[in-house]
Amino acid sequence: MPIRLSTATADFEARFVELLAMKREVSEEVSQTVKAIGAEVIARGDQALIDYTARFDRLTLTPATLRVTPEEIAAATAQCDARTLEALRLAATRIRSYHERQKPKDDRFVDALGVELGYRWTAIEAVGLYVPGGTAAYPSSVLMNAIPAKVAGCPRIVMVVPAPGGILNPLVLAAAELAGVDEVYRIGGAQAVFALAHGTETIRPVAKIMGPGNAYVAAAKRQVFGTVGIDMIAGPSEVLVIADGTANPDWIAADLLAQAEHDVAAQSLLITDDASLAEAVIASVESQLATLPRADIAGASWRDFGAVIQVRSLDEAVPLADRIAAEHLEIIVEDGEALSARIRNAGAIFLGGHTPEAIGDYVGGSNHVLPTARSARFSSGLGVLDFMKRTSILKCGPDQLRALGPAAIALGEAEGLAAHARSVAIRMNLG
Amino acid sequence: MPIRLSTATADFEARFVELLAMKREVSEEVSQTVKAIGAEVIARGDQALIDYTARFDRLTLTPATLRVTPEEIAAATAQCDARTLEALRLAATRIRSYHERQKPKDDRFVDALGVELGYRWTAIEAVGLYVPGGTAAYPSSVLMNAIPAKVAGCPRIVMVVPAPGGILNPLVLAAAELAGVDEVYRIGGAQAVFALAHGTETIRPVAKIMGPGNAYVAAAKRQVFGTVGIDMIAGPSEVLVIADGTANPDWIAADLLAQAEHDVAAQSLLITDDASLAEAVIASVESQLATLPRADIAGASWRDFGAVIQVRSLDEAVPLADRIAAEHLEIIVEDGEALSARIRNAGAIFLGGHTPEAIGDYVGGSNHVLPTARSARFSSGLGVLDFMKRTSILKCGPDQLRALGPAAIALGEAEGLAAHARSVAIRMNLG
Repeated sequence: MPIRLSTATADFEARFVELLAMKREVSEEVSQTVKAIGAEVIARGDQALIDYTARFDRLTLTPATLRVTPEEIAAATAQCDARTLEALRLAATRIRSYHERQKPKDDRFVDALGVELGYRWTAIEAVGLYVPGGTAAYPSSVLMNAIPAKVAGCPRIVMVVPAPGGILNPLVLAAAELAGVDEVYRIGGAQAVFALAHGTETIRPVAKIMGPGNAYVAAAKRQVFGTVGIDMIAGPSEVLVIADGTANPDWIAADLLAQAEHDVAAQSLLITDDASLAEAVIASVESQLATLPRADIAGASWRDFGAVIQVRSLDEAVPLADRIAAEHLEIIVEDGEALSARIRNAGAIFLGGHTPEAIGDYVGGSNHVLPTARSARFSSGLGVLDFMKRTSILKCGPDQLRALGPAAIALGEAEGLAAHARSVAIRMNLG
Repeated sequence: MPIRLSTATADFEARFVELLAMKREVSEEVSQTVKAIGAEVIARGDQALIDYTARFDRLTLTPATLRVTPEEIAAATAQCDARTLEALRLAATRIRSYHERQKPKDDRFVDALGVELGYRWTAIEAVGLYVPGGTAAYPSSVLMNAIPAKVAGCPRIVMVVPAPGGILNPLVLAAAELAGVDEVYRIGGAQAVFALAHGTETIRPVAKIMGPGNAYVAAAKRQVFGTVGIDMIAGPSEVLVIADGTANPDWIAADLLAQAEHDVAAQSLLITDDASLAEAVIASVESQLATLPRADIAGASWRDFGAVIQVRSLDEAVPLADRIAAEHLEIIVEDGEALSARIRNAGAIFLGGHTPEAIGDYVGGSNHVLPTARSARFSSGLGVLDFMKRTSILKCGPDQLRALGPAAIALGEAEGLAAHARSVAIRMNLG
């Protein structure tokens, strides 16, 4: 049974704080191991990659076979199921269209003093995309990471994906091709992250590394941060459904289970003002669990972290949702738009009963890489801006320098930075 | 003497790689100490802050005196020099105008299938600003951090600044008031970072922490990352000047020294195609050093990390500048605009001889918080977007679900996520 809370009870605040503070992941202490792997990759390059891949992935490579060839990618694509490939193409097209609209505009203007100001955006020169191997190798995630990079205009997109026992997921390779990935290497783990950050004889370094991974990959990303940029460190996924009596309980139950099947550490939450809906959803979850292939995972997630919060009115849902700051927020109430407009913190909002979160995972067009574990309070889902950076531009002539110079000199002096002041004064024939 | 390189020599590439790889900062291993401080602040709240402040800042506080009162801030402002205050006001006005233009637009659209898509930006609910104490307490940095937060619409901006021996820099407090900081606490160090991230009895937690600090502050920011957002971890500052024979060597020397006076680990670089300019700049640096108050710092920085790179043509400067990815890039050549347009990696570009970097530090209007240590390859200077986050929005009706559903089902099944597929199918009367 999920956790049950009600805002009508005296202990609600204390129990809600407990719910927010629940540790859903045991953080493995792997940073020393990862540090040693990093040192090896930096010192021995390709050979370290080859050694680790033999050990961890039971796969013998040479510098020449690190890279997955275009022929292998074409062959993998050819063996994919046609219906799935078609779905992948639809997803790619829709993701591309959505992200095209995120391309930022440069700005350049002249102010009243005649100072020229502005900024311009440029694409990151090379980005690396980590794709987990095995069952967590999701072709949809390849699209979600690589297409915004392509839209941003990154000239070089490099993917790494482990091939345990030599096996690669053909759909992952098909997605890489579809998205325009430039290079694919069959390596994974911390060693792949260090190879992307520092480069080896075969792999040129990138400037930023994206993509999810296990504890080793996450630790490696933390360690290379600074040498390269990284995206967020993703935690277990979560969904919050806010629903009223107009919602279909079976549909909500299906959405809660879709979240729960990801991981035993995933979290599915329901806030409702309708007690009978709450009961119906809980019953439907139990009945749908009976026929779910991943019932063990989904059931554990629901039992351990699932929660149903009963509110006296939907007004109460707004501040609670902001404190939860869910990665995915479904709003299935009579006036969803109005409620949605009042929410500050959410990674993505899915409006109305006909927008299950799974549509957003695959073919909605918006990005499914979203801030987890309450980080929607301060961060955004993946987008084109994550693959670009902004350079500011400033240009004064003699008149502008004369106008602004005295203030700059005053502040430089006030901060005890005489050379700052002098660098202005010397141009005004004052220094 | 600075390092001298020339692209005409055979060993140039090797020596340039060495220059890029130079370690300018010894990274102090303080993470264990910082971890212990964090545990204390989380466990004991205000009392831990009071204890650490007594120990590190020789200052006795109570929960009631942690916060700097509005009266203290007004009194501090009143004792500031009028000319400096006026300069600070000009800076604030210009920074505000520049950043107003960065406010992002929401997007909402309906695609050909009738799917409603889009995203909206919201301000981060509360941000913390760390301001170092002592000589590194720069009022200009308070403006550069707090004004974009205000422009973004953050409803709560909290500043922490240590007061060693009880002393606060009046200009820092004046800048806080001018920028619209809502709360100021006289605490610093790792303890202040943990207080902002986790909250205490007196200090409510924030969602993101910005601002520079020493090794302890940087380590604390790394440790609270995830619980809250953080800005970049700033490294020592650097400037790259690209100049041709039209440039004034004394002006360039002044700019190189303005950078060098920040820190012995700062770096000042010159790339020029004019050998006699190079010699004249080097001579002028020496002569200007003689009369500089911070000559010891600037001289050490210039000797240890300064470099002059002679190129055969300015075309060669472009890829070198991109590899250096300087925080500050001054371009003082005949056609600066054209050269500037070819640069991909720089935090900020200062165009022409009359735009010393110090103008940008104070009163240009653009932000002076910029990516250091080559991180302009993958990140941007501080801006309004750093204080906002984006929520994506998706809305399907029954028709759109019918159109997109089959592809979502196919991909869910291909990824082994049956509950994902079912959450779509159940709404199509298929599941």
